[in-house]
Amino acid sequence: MYELSLIGIGTGNPDHVTFQGARAIREADLILIPRKGENKADLAGLREEIIAQVTETPPRIAYFDIPRRRSDDGYLRGVDEWHDAIAVRWQEAIASHPEATQVALLIWGDPSLYDSSLRIASRLNPQPKTRVIPGITALQALTAAHAIPINDIGAPYLVTTGRRIREEGWPENLGKVAVMLDGECSFQSLDMGDYDIWWGAYVGMKEEILISGPLGDVAEEIVETRTRARADHGWIMDIYLLKKRGI
Amino acid sequence: MYELSLIGIGTGNPDHVTFQGARAIREADLILIPRKGENKADLAGLREEIIAQVTETPPRIAYFDIPRRRSDDGYLRGVDEWHDAIAVRWQEAIASHPEATQVALLIWGDPSLYDSSLRIASRLNPQPKTRVIPGITALQALTAAHAIPINDIGAPYLVTTGRRIREEGWPENLGKVAVMLDGECSFQSLDMGDYDIWWGAYVGMKEEILISGPLGDVAEEIVETRTRARADHGWIMDIYLLKKRGI
Repeated sequence: MYELSLIGIGTGNPDHVTFQGARAIREADLILIPRKGENKADLAGLREEIIAQVTETPPRIAYFDIPRRRSDDGYLRGVDEWHDAIAVRWQEAIASHPEATQVALLIWGDPSLYDSSLRIASRLNPQPKTRVIPGITALQALTAAHAIPINDIGAPYLVTTGRRIREEGWPENLGKVAVMLDGECSFQSLDMGDYDIWWGAYVGMKEEILISGPLGDVAEEIVETRTRARADHGWIMDIYLLKKRGI
Repeated sequence: MYELSLIGIGTGNPDHVTFQGARAIREADLILIPRKGENKADLAGLREEIIAQVTETPPRIAYFDIPRRRSDDGYLRGVDEWHDAIAVRWQEAIASHPEATQVALLIWGDPSLYDSSLRIASRLNPQPKTRVIPGITALQALTAAHAIPINDIGAPYLVTTGRRIREEGWPENLGKVAVMLDGECSFQSLDMGDYDIWWGAYVGMKEEILISGPLGDVAEEIVETRTRARADHGWIMDIYLLKKRGI
């Protein structure tokens, strides 16, 4: 039986890797790498680059294809079946290397944050012992790039999705909200005069783009920049922090 | 004029340091290290250990004392004056090394998360260019240790303080809340039958203690464990994630 390591590798900057992550990569005897992802970021040679950076004797690599997500079911049910399907691919890739005792996956960002790998791992049968190596999240890469704290002193913040902002609006009595997984610039659904925004795309990477300011002043620039960047690169990952004034 | 780097070093495990953080330490020609802190964690040789781990030719180190926080004013005003006072110590330490062009501080966790260093840096005069190197937060160390995601699929989570939980209760319609800066086991103020908890002290360190389960079942164990650990070590840092059932 093998042990499974989910190694957070940060947000595209190979130097986001921690010493702990590097050690876990060196200890692995099999690394699973997705060949086709939801977006081009998964296709980039980033994972190979990171492995080469931390060891001169790379472990065996098993590539697997990420199945397409069905969008004709409800959102949660679609996700659930998709995770089932990915777990099958993991299982097949691992089964083809029965000698492996330390299997690892390199996880974009951190395995705890809007990531499916822990849920996929829980579907493996038999269930391997799973350990998680934390990595730099897009949230931290964003606040680092803007050189800002995420919270006001002693105050809370919410992390949520673009969908929630569009469907539920601004959460009452909260000053700071970080928005992830937003393909639709959902800040446009807010009363834009009341907010400041710190936006970033490709945060931590050499392609990084940052825009900040009063939301009403910079919203259009963000939407246009995002559209252009997405067309130029063929994919985009962006994230932003909003502050409601007067809270 | 110097550049200031605030380098996130993670939560007490020297292997939490990223390659980017290690490089920033090597590039520094002056590192400020606090000699007395709010708790014993600041006193540990951790920062020296990390510096020695990443370079054989350590940069000059300037130690400074962290002034005591006055608690007789209001909370926010007390914090504000305390930051003013710390900024004076930074300024003095830097002024005594006028040759330094790359000044760095090693920040517990990440400079964005419930940390004052960005606010203190903004008080320096003249204002140096400041860059932030993200580090592993206690939140990620906690979820990694428990091998759990922080959010449910597509769902939000709130990060808040023990004080807020005591004073304002559970935030409406939220399933997941992470609590930091809680010296009083504030989960006891909730209706404990409705929640699950994942608690950790010294997360990421060799002293790490983890307890999880239905809040009503484990609350007492957490309170007792925390009291004992704090007495044994002379200090404690703990953090926890709560899930309200049925949301």
